[in-house]
Amino acid sequence: MAVLDAAADLALGTACVPTIDAVASRAGVSRTTIYKWWPSSAAVLAEALLERFHESIEFDDGLAVRDALTLQVDALVRLLRDTPAGALLRQLLAAAASDERLGRALLAQWMDPRRESAVHHVRRGIEQGDLRADVDADLVVDALFAPVYHRLVWGHAPLDAGLAQQVCDLVWPGIAASRTAT
Amino acid sequence: MAVLDAAADLALGTACVPTIDAVASRAGVSRTTIYKWWPSSAAVLAEALLERFHESIEFDDGLAVRDALTLQVDALVRLLRDTPAGALLRQLLAAAASDERLGRALLAQWMDPRRESAVHHVRRGIEQGDLRADVDADLVVDALFAPVYHRLVWGHAPLDAGLAQQVCDLVWPGIAASRTAT
Repeated sequence: MAVLDAAADLALGTACVPTIDAVASRAGVSRTTIYKWWPSSAAVLAEALLERFHESIEFDDGLAVRDALTLQVDALVRLLRDTPAGALLRQLLAAAASDERLGRALLAQWMDPRRESAVHHVRRGIEQGDLRADVDADLVVDALFAPVYHRLVWGHAPLDAGLAQQVCDLVWPGIAASRTAT
Repeated sequence: MAVLDAAADLALGTACVPTIDAVASRAGVSRTTIYKWWPSSAAVLAEALLERFHESIEFDDGLAVRDALTLQVDALVRLLRDTPAGALLRQLLAAAASDERLGRALLAQWMDPRRESAVHHVRRGIEQGDLRADVDADLVVDALFAPVYHRLVWGHAPLDAGLAQQVCDLVWPGIAASRTAT
């Protein structure tokens, strides 16, 4: 959809939330058309980023749960490190500190779909007997993905190539059913 | 020290970085005096916060390593949830996204001393044989503390009373020496 592509292109080029005017101009539509469907440019952008990067949260249920989760963490590392999405997300999170509506849009369009996709694999792991029945899926998703966002926001350590594997190896013994704990 | 107290009081009252003029006025000193010792108001504030909250990273080596780490994560949860430090830190991180000097001051004055204190306990655990000899202390510290900062920054889940214990319980089997893995 032209509006979403325009918003994503502008934002990824500048690492800022584009204005509605800029999005409308690039998409060749009127401001009114955009406001008919979205409440703010931040909301357009959040949806645009979800669409643009959706493949980074799609993984085959044919994969072993541990592999699916590791690949998903690694896809986030690569997305934040190797594309302009990292710098852009850092700016969006900064802006969200003083803009509650943007914060809600980021949760709804960026974080929630990503968390749901990871929770899906955790639940699959519980059903298949790979993971302990009593694991808290939301906590596990925090444990797996928070170190990646933490390094993006603070910059105290790099988003290096081995990070996803290291984090998953660290967390796995705490969540695996005893027959698969090693 | 009057300057540090003034900076901490102003920042915690407003959740913003105070100006040098405001700090000087409250501390009853001149701008020149402050600039003699600190390069910016952000640098004053970062040091002020370290001094104000230093007790939250001091733990007795007499404690078992697992208890010391759990208490340290819990102290961070309480600090960010129950005092104005949480809202302030969120604003400082947001400002650091477009101010590299502030980012470096936050790392040097907030994050590094906290990480060092946690790394100390991880190393103590390795020396005492509680933790596996090959654990990566920096990665473990990320795994333990990142979920807390992650919830502060995104707001997708509360900093609830059980969080520190839950995170430590999740991570422990992945780092414990086999004799202490449960």
